[in-house]
Amino acid sequence: MSEYFKGIGKIEYKGKGGDDLSFKFYNPEEVVNGKSMKDNLKFAMSYWHTLTGQGVDIFGGATQDKSFGETDPMAHAKAKAEAGFEFMDKLGIEYFCFHDRDIAPEADTLEETNKRLDEIVDYIEVLMKKYNKKLLWGTTNAFSNPRFMHGAATSCNADVFAFAAAQIKKAIEITTRLGGAGYVFWGGREGYATLLNTKMGFELDNLGRMLKMARDYGRSIGFTGDFYIEPKPMEPMTHQYDYDCATVIGFLNKHGLEKDFKLNVEANHATLAGHSFAHELRVAREAGMLGSIDANQGEVFNGWDTDNFPTNVYDMALAMYELIKAGGYPKGGTNFDAKLRRASTDAKDLFRGYITGMDTMALAYKIAAKIIEDGRLDSFVDQRYSSYNSGIGKKIVDGTATFAELEKYALDLGEVTTNESGAQEYLEGIVNSIIFG
Amino acid sequence: MSEYFKGIGKIEYKGKGGDDLSFKFYNPEEVVNGKSMKDNLKFAMSYWHTLTGQGVDIFGGATQDKSFGETDPMAHAKAKAEAGFEFMDKLGIEYFCFHDRDIAPEADTLEETNKRLDEIVDYIEVLMKKYNKKLLWGTTNAFSNPRFMHGAATSCNADVFAFAAAQIKKAIEITTRLGGAGYVFWGGREGYATLLNTKMGFELDNLGRMLKMARDYGRSIGFTGDFYIEPKPMEPMTHQYDYDCATVIGFLNKHGLEKDFKLNVEANHATLAGHSFAHELRVAREAGMLGSIDANQGEVFNGWDTDNFPTNVYDMALAMYELIKAGGYPKGGTNFDAKLRRASTDAKDLFRGYITGMDTMALAYKIAAKIIEDGRLDSFVDQRYSSYNSGIGKKIVDGTATFAELEKYALDLGEVTTNESGAQEYLEGIVNSIIFG
Amino acid sequence: MSEYFKGIGKIEYKGKGGDDLSFKFYNPEEVVNGKSMKDNLKFAMSYWHTLTGQGVDIFGGATQDKSFGETDPMAHAKAKAEAGFEFMDKLGIEYFCFHDRDIAPEADTLEETNKRLDEIVDYIEVLMKKYNKKLLWGTTNAFSNPRFMHGAATSCNADVFAFAAAQIKKAIEITTRLGGAGYVFWGGREGYATLLNTKMGFELDNLGRMLKMARDYGRSIGFTGDFYIEPKPMEPMTHQYDYDCATVIGFLNKHGLEKDFKLNVEANHATLAGHSFAHELRVAREAGMLGSIDANQGEVFNGWDTDNFPTNVYDMALAMYELIKAGGYPKGGTNFDAKLRRASTDAKDLFRGYITGMDTMALAYKIAAKIIEDGRLDSFVDQRYSSYNSGIGKKIVDGTATFAELEKYALDLGEVTTNESGAQEYLEGIVNSIIFG
Amino acid sequence: MSEYFKGIGKIEYKGKGGDDLSFKFYNPEEVVNGKSMKDNLKFAMSYWHTLTGQGVDIFGGATQDKSFGETDPMAHAKAKAEAGFEFMDKLGIEYFCFHDRDIAPEADTLEETNKRLDEIVDYIEVLMKKYNKKLLWGTTNAFSNPRFMHGAATSCNADVFAFAAAQIKKAIEITTRLGGAGYVFWGGREGYATLLNTKMGFELDNLGRMLKMARDYGRSIGFTGDFYIEPKPMEPMTHQYDYDCATVIGFLNKHGLEKDFKLNVEANHATLAGHSFAHELRVAREAGMLGSIDANQGEVFNGWDTDNFPTNVYDMALAMYELIKAGGYPKGGTNFDAKLRRASTDAKDLFRGYITGMDTMALAYKIAAKIIEDGRLDSFVDQRYSSYNSGIGKKIVDGTATFAELEKYALDLGEVTTNESGAQEYLEGIVNSIIFG
Repeated sequence: MSEYFKGIGKIEYKGKGGDDLSFKFYNPEEVVNGKSMKDNLKFAMSYWHTLTGQGVDIFGGATQDKSFGETDPMAHAKAKAEAGFEFMDKLGIEYFCFHDRDIAPEADTLEETNKRLDEIVDYIEVLMKKYNKKLLWGTTNAFSNPRFMHGAATSCNADVFAFAAAQIKKAIEITTRLGGAGYVFWGGREGYATLLNTKMGFELDNLGRMLKMARDYGRSIGFTGDFYIEPKPMEPMTHQYDYDCATVIGFLNKHGLEKDFKLNVEANHATLAGHSFAHELRVAREAGMLGSIDANQGEVFNGWDTDNFPTNVYDMALAMYELIKAGGYPKGGTNFDAKLRRASTDAKDLFRGYITGMDTMALAYKIAAKIIEDGRLDSFVDQRYSSYNSGIGKKIVDGTATFAELEKYALDLGEVTTNESGAQEYLEGIVNSIIFG
Repeated sequence: MSEYFKGIGKIEYKGKGGDDLSFKFYNPEEVVNGKSMKDNLKFAMSYWHTLTGQGVDIFGGATQDKSFGETDPMAHAKAKAEAGFEFMDKLGIEYFCFHDRDIAPEADTLEETNKRLDEIVDYIEVLMKKYNKKLLWGTTNAFSNPRFMHGAATSCNADVFAFAAAQIKKAIEITTRLGGAGYVFWGGREGYATLLNTKMGFELDNLGRMLKMARDYGRSIGFTGDFYIEPKPMEPMTHQYDYDCATVIGFLNKHGLEKDFKLNVEANHATLAGHSFAHELRVAREAGMLGSIDANQGEVFNGWDTDNFPTNVYDMALAMYELIKAGGYPKGGTNFDAKLRRASTDAKDLFRGYITGMDTMALAYKIAAKIIEDGRLDSFVDQRYSSYNSGIGKKIVDGTATFAELEKYALDLGEVTTNESGAQEYLEGIVNSIIFG
Repeated sequence: MSEYFKGIGKIEYKGKGGDDLSFKFYNPEEVVNGKSMKDNLKFAMSYWHTLTGQGVDIFGGATQDKSFGETDPMAHAKAKAEAGFEFMDKLGIEYFCFHDRDIAPEADTLEETNKRLDEIVDYIEVLMKKYNKKLLWGTTNAFSNPRFMHGAATSCNADVFAFAAAQIKKAIEITTRLGGAGYVFWGGREGYATLLNTKMGFELDNLGRMLKMARDYGRSIGFTGDFYIEPKPMEPMTHQYDYDCATVIGFLNKHGLEKDFKLNVEANHATLAGHSFAHELRVAREAGMLGSIDANQGEVFNGWDTDNFPTNVYDMALAMYELIKAGGYPKGGTNFDAKLRRASTDAKDLFRGYITGMDTMALAYKIAAKIIEDGRLDSFVDQRYSSYNSGIGKKIVDGTATFAELEKYALDLGEVTTNESGAQEYLEGIVNSIIFG
Repeated sequence: MSEYFKGIGKIEYKGKGGDDLSFKFYNPEEVVNGKSMKDNLKFAMSYWHTLTGQGVDIFGGATQDKSFGETDPMAHAKAKAEAGFEFMDKLGIEYFCFHDRDIAPEADTLEETNKRLDEIVDYIEVLMKKYNKKLLWGTTNAFSNPRFMHGAATSCNADVFAFAAAQIKKAIEITTRLGGAGYVFWGGREGYATLLNTKMGFELDNLGRMLKMARDYGRSIGFTGDFYIEPKPMEPMTHQYDYDCATVIGFLNKHGLEKDFKLNVEANHATLAGHSFAHELRVAREAGMLGSIDANQGEVFNGWDTDNFPTNVYDMALAMYELIKAGGYPKGGTNFDAKLRRASTDAKDLFRGYITGMDTMALAYKIAAKIIEDGRLDSFVDQRYSSYNSGIGKKIVDGTATFAELEKYALDLGEVTTNESGAQEYLEGIVNSIIFG
C-alpha cells in the first residue's frame, strides 16, 4: 500500500510554540471535564471534502488533485480509502463520515452501483480494523445525480422516491455493517426551486414517510445508532425544507420521529439561516436533540456555503458551551465538513486545515469548560430567573397560577419594581477575561 | 364631533383614470370568487400606525402630528378614536385592529390604566355602532413599557409575567366585549438580547404557559374568535422566538395550542426572516393555520421593519394566491400594519398610503383569482405529481410501500427515465401573461 | 449544417393571447420613443449560459445536454456556433456576447489555444454574415482556468499577469475583427479570498495598469467600441474589487480610464451588492457611464448569483426608466446573462426562458416610456427641487453662496417652513396606475 | 459640582484577575510600538450615547435615566457636561466627541440655539481645562430635527441647505475654539427614501458644494484638523450616499476634497455595508485616508445599527493591524460610538461597557502588534508578491511592459507553472497561535 501524504509524519501535540504541522492547542490525551479531549471532541474526517473535493467552484475547475495516482474508477476508490485512513492515522482522528457515493462511484445501474459499494465496504472494513478507526455516521448522496434534480424524498416523481429509498436502504445497511454510530439525512435537494411548481405540503409529507421507512428499516436490521437531520436553509435549492433547527424539530415532532432522530448541526448552515451557531445548538439542546456537529465556518459576508475550516475560537467557544451543557455528544462527534480554499494547493495545506480546525475546536472546548468552571455566567443566569423559584413565580412554572390570580397580584403591585439589569456588557467582559485570562 | 380630515370626502372607486384620492383598482362591490372584494379582503385599519405613529425613527423626531387638537391624555384618546372612525368611514374600511395601549394611555397604576381602558372602550363601542365598524382583532402592547425590557411572558422576572398576564386578561376582555374576531400575540420582546443571560427553554415554556392561560381564560369568558401568533424573526430583540411560521407552528403543536391558534402573517416580517411572503403563507396554509394577514412591505435592501404600504402587485399576487387556495380568511382579514414614510407630511398622504395599499391588494387578489381561473399553473402542478396517483407512487402516499419493495422497484428500473422539466421559466411566463394580459 | 433546435420555428409576436413559443409583449417592430423596440433594447444572446451551460451547480452535475452531437473539441465548438446562430435567428436576436473560452476550448499551450480561437473566429465571421448578426461585446475568461486561482490582473504572480495580458490582447483582437461594439472586463477572480495574504492596493494598481494597457492596445489596433467593467461584489472571491458601480467609477476616475470605460451593469450583481438594479443604473447614469446591461434577476433570498431570466416587470420598469433617461444605450445592449434553472430540461425551455425575458424587458421598457410620457413623476421631482432655480438656491448651485451668507439667510429665517411632503406613497400609486392602467 | 457616578472611583488597571470595575487588559502606560497604549489608542467618549442615550428603541421608551437631576434644559446641559467630564476622568479617557445638539438643546430660533451653544461651550472649555481633556472631533446633528427629513446638504429644499450650512459653520467654529483635532460629517439623512422622488446626481453635487464650503470656511478661521466623512450604507435612509469607504473615496476625489478629508470608519457601519471592519480600514489605509475610528460592533445577524460595545477581540485585532500598518492615527482616535443594551440598567453598566470596550481594543492592539512583530504573516505576503520585484513583474509595475511583450512572454511560457498556495488555513493558524499563544 502506497504512502499518499509523503513527507508528513504523525501530527503531534507540541504546545504553543509548535510549527504548522503540529497541534498547538489540541492535546488528545489532556483530560478536561473528566474525559480526554479526544473523547470530548470525537473528531471525524469528512470523506467528501477531504478525499473527493478538488477546489472546484462554480466559476472554475480543479486546483487540487485527488486522483491518488489512479484512473480506473474502482482502483481510484480504493486508493482514496487508503489515503483517507492514512490521513486519519497521521492526524490522530478516530472517526470518519461518508456519503455512499463518496466511497464508490455510481455505475450504469443501481444493481451495479450496489456491487461497487459492497466491494469498497469490504475494503473499508479491512482498513478500519488495520487503523482502528470508526464510522461516526454514514449518509446518502441523493442530490448530485441529475435524477434528483427535483428532490429525492420530496421529488414530484415517484420513481425518484423509489430510487432514493433504495439508495437509503443500502446506505443504512452499509452504515450498520460498518458499525456506524449514526445515519444522517442532509436533504440536498429537498426543497423547492420555485413555489410555482411545488406542492409543499405533499412533499413534506413524503419526506416524513421516507424518514419513517428509514427508521423502521434501520431498526429492523439492527441499526441502533441515532438518525440525524442536518438543517440547511437554502442552496442548492431556493428554499430547503430543513431550514433550521426549530423548523426541523417541529417537523420531527409532527411526524412522530423525535425519539429516533436528533440534529446534526452545521455552523455554516446556521449562519446562512441567520442564526449564530450557538443559537442553533441551544435550540437543539433545549429540545434534547443535539446529536452531532458539522464543524466549519462561513465567510461572514458571503451568502453561500463556503465550508471554511473553523478558526473562530470565539464563536466556537460559545458553541462548545452548548455542547458541554448538553452533556456532550450522545453518539455523535465533531465532523469537519470543511474544505480547503480553492487556492490552498500546497501538499501540506490539507493537514494545516485540519490542524487549525482541531486546534480551534480544542481551544474552544477548553474555554467553554473554563466558563462553566468559573461559574460567574451560570450563577448570574440562575439568579436572574430566581423569582420563579418561589411565590407567584413558582405557581406560574407549576401551572397552578390563573389569570385571575395573576391579575390580582399585578393590581396589588401597581407597577413592577424588581427588574434588574441584563448586564450584557458585564457578561461579555467575563467571557473575554476567561478567553484571554 | 369635529371633522379631523377636512377637505377629504368619501374615497370612491373611479377606475383606472381616477385621481390620487380615489380607488383605481379596488371596487368594494365587485364580485370575485363569488364574494364582494370587500368581503374577500376584509380591510382593517391599524390603530397604531394610523392614529399614533408620527414619523419618528431612531434618528429623528415627529414629522407628522397626531395630536388631533388635544393635549389632555383622555381627551386625546377620544379624539383619536373619533379620527380613526372618520378615517375608516371615508375609506370604506370595515374593520380595525388595536393594541390596548393604542386606544388609552397608561396611568400610574395598572388599576388606573384599566379604568382608562374601560372609559375608551365605552366610547369605541358607541363609535362602532354609529359607523357600523367591527373589530378584526385586539392585542396587548407588552413591549413598549420599560417594565417589559426583558420580555413579557418570557421575562426573567415573575412580577413582569404577572403584569403581562393581567394586561392580556384585560385585553382579551375588551376584545371580547367589542366582538373582536381575533386576538393577536405579537411578542415584541419575547426573545433574547444575548444568549449569555438567557434560559431559552425556560422562557419558551413560560410563553407556552401564558398562551394556554390566555386561551383558557378567553374561552371561559365567551371569546370564540381565533387566537393568532404573529411571527417576526428579530427586532427589537436580537432574536425573537416567534421567528417564522414554521417555528411558530412547531411551538404551537408542542404546547397543544394548534386548535385555537392560527398565524397572523406579516409581509415585512416574512422578508426579514429570509422568506418571501408567499412562502410564509404557504407554510401557514399547508398547516391549516393561515389566519390573518398584516399587509405591508419592507424596503428590500434594509434589514429592519420598515412597514411600507404594500405596492408590489407581483409579490402580493402570489400571496393572494395562497389566501384563495386556503379558502380565504377563516376569521381574519387584511390589516394594514403599514406606516407613512417619515417625509410623507401632506394631509392627503395617509389616505394616499391606504388607497395605494388597498388598490395593490385588490389588483393582487384579482390577478390571483385569474391565475386560478386560467388553470394552467394548477394543472401543470397536478400533472407534475401525477405519478403518485397510482402504482408505486400511490403505495408510497398510502403508506403501504416498504423499503424492500421500493428497492426491488428501483433495481428493476435500473435508472430513472421519467423526470420532466420543472419549467420554471414557462410558469413565470404564464404568470406575467396573466398579470399583464 | 444541421438544425439543432428541431421542431421550433421562428418566434413571432402574437400579442397577449400567444402561446409559450411566441412573444406576447415584445414586438420587435413596434415603435416606442421614436425607435423600434428591437433597436431600443438591442437584445444579445450570452454564448456561455446559452450554449455552454448544462445545469451544473455546486452540488450536482449536468442536466442539460450541450454536446450538439459532437465529441471532438473543435467540431463541438463549431456545432455550438451553428446552434447559437440558429438560436438567435429563431428568436430574432441580433447580437451576441462571448468570452474567448466560450467559443473555442483551451489547448495545451497558449499558442495552440490562440490557433483554435482563430479557426473558430473565421467560422463565426461566416455565420455572422450568413445570419446578419453582430457582436455586442467580447470578453476574456480569465477566471476558470486554475492558473487564475489568485486572480488575473490582480494575481500575486507576474507570470499570471502576463498570461492574462496575452489573453486579453488576443480577445480584443478578435472582438475588433468581428466588429464588436464593446469589450467587457468581468474580473471573476479580481478580488481576495482573505485579507491575510493580500496586498489590496498593489493588486488594484496592477488592475489599473492592465486596463490602461488594454485600452491603449485596443485603440492602437482600431477598436473604437466602449470598454466596460461589470461590477460584482463577491463570488467566487470573498470580496471582488469591482464591488458596485460607485466603487468602479471611483476606480476608473482614479486611473484616468473614465473616458474609455463605461459600466456593464448586471441586475443580479446589483442585488448581491445590496442595491436595487435601478439604483446601480442611476449611479452609472449620473456619472455618464451607463454602457450596457446584463439582464437577469436573482432569487431574492439567495446570496449567490442565480442568474435567473428576468421576469419581474416591476424592477425592470424602474431599470428601463434609467436607461431611457440616460438616452438609451451608447453602444451597448441588453445581454441575457441568464441561465435556465437546473431542472428546466425540456427542449423548449431555452426558448421559453429567452421569450419570458424578452417579453419582460419589452413590457418594462414600454411601462418606463409611459411613466415618462405621463409626466407626473418627473414634474413632481422637478417641482420638488425648484427652490434651487432662483434666489439662495441658485446661488448654492452656482457656487457663489458662502457660509456667511447662508448663515445670515438661515438666521433671518429662524426656522424652515417650506418643506413639503416627499409623497412616496403617492408616487408609488402613480407608478402602479401606469403599470396596470 | 455634584458627583454623578457615586460609588465608582477611578478605574485602574488590575490585570487579568481584576474585577468588573477595573481594566484587565488596558494598561494606559504600557508601551507598545514605542508609545503608551493611551497614545496608541486615544480613546474618546461619545457625548451622545454616553450622556444622552436612554435605552430608547423604536419599540419602547427610556430605560436609562440621563436627567442628571435637572429638568431645566440649560441646567441639564451643564449637568450633562459635568457628568461627562467626571466619567472621562474616572475612566482615564482623554478625548471626547460631540454633535452640536448633544451639548446644548435647540431653541425656537437658530439665533437662540446658537446662544445656548456658546454658553455651553464656555462651560465645556472650563471643564476641559479642569480635567485636562481634549476634543477629538466635533460634528453637526443635521438629521434629527424634522426640518432635515429630506436631508441637509442633500435636501431638495434650498432653505434646508442654508440652515444646515449655518449649523455646520457654527459647529466648525466651536470645534475650532475648543481645539478639536477633527470635524466629522455623518450624513444621517444624506441619501434617499425612494429613487422615485430623488435627483441623485444633483443631491451629490450639492453635498460636494457643502463640503467645499465647510473646508474653505474651516481653513479660513484657522481650523487645522482633519475633516472626516463617516460612511454608512443605510439607516435611517433607504440608501445613504456615503455607503462605504470606496464610495466615499471616489466622491472625495471627484470633488477635489481628498487633501482635507479622511475617513472616520465605524465597525458597525462596515458590517451593515457587507464588509468586515478590517476590509473598510484596509480600503481607507491604501488610499491614505484612514483618519479615525468609531469603535463598536453590530449584532451579526441584525440588519440595523446596534452600536454594541466592541467585545470581539478577533475582528478588532485585524482592524488594529490595519491601524498600525497605517502608521497609527494621523489626528484621529478611537471613539466609542457604542451604547448600552436597552436592558443594561445598572449604575455600573456604563462603566462596564466602556471597560469591556477599552480592554477589547487594547487586547486587539497588542495582538496586532504581536502579529507584526512575529513577522510570519508579513513575510509570507512579501514573498507571495515577489515575482513583481524583478524581471517581467518589475516591468509591469514600472509601467514599461506592453501587451506585445507580455504576450511574447506568455507564449514562451506556454503555461503558468509558478503559482503557489494562498495558504489561507496556514495563515489563520498563525493568527490563532499568536492570539492564544
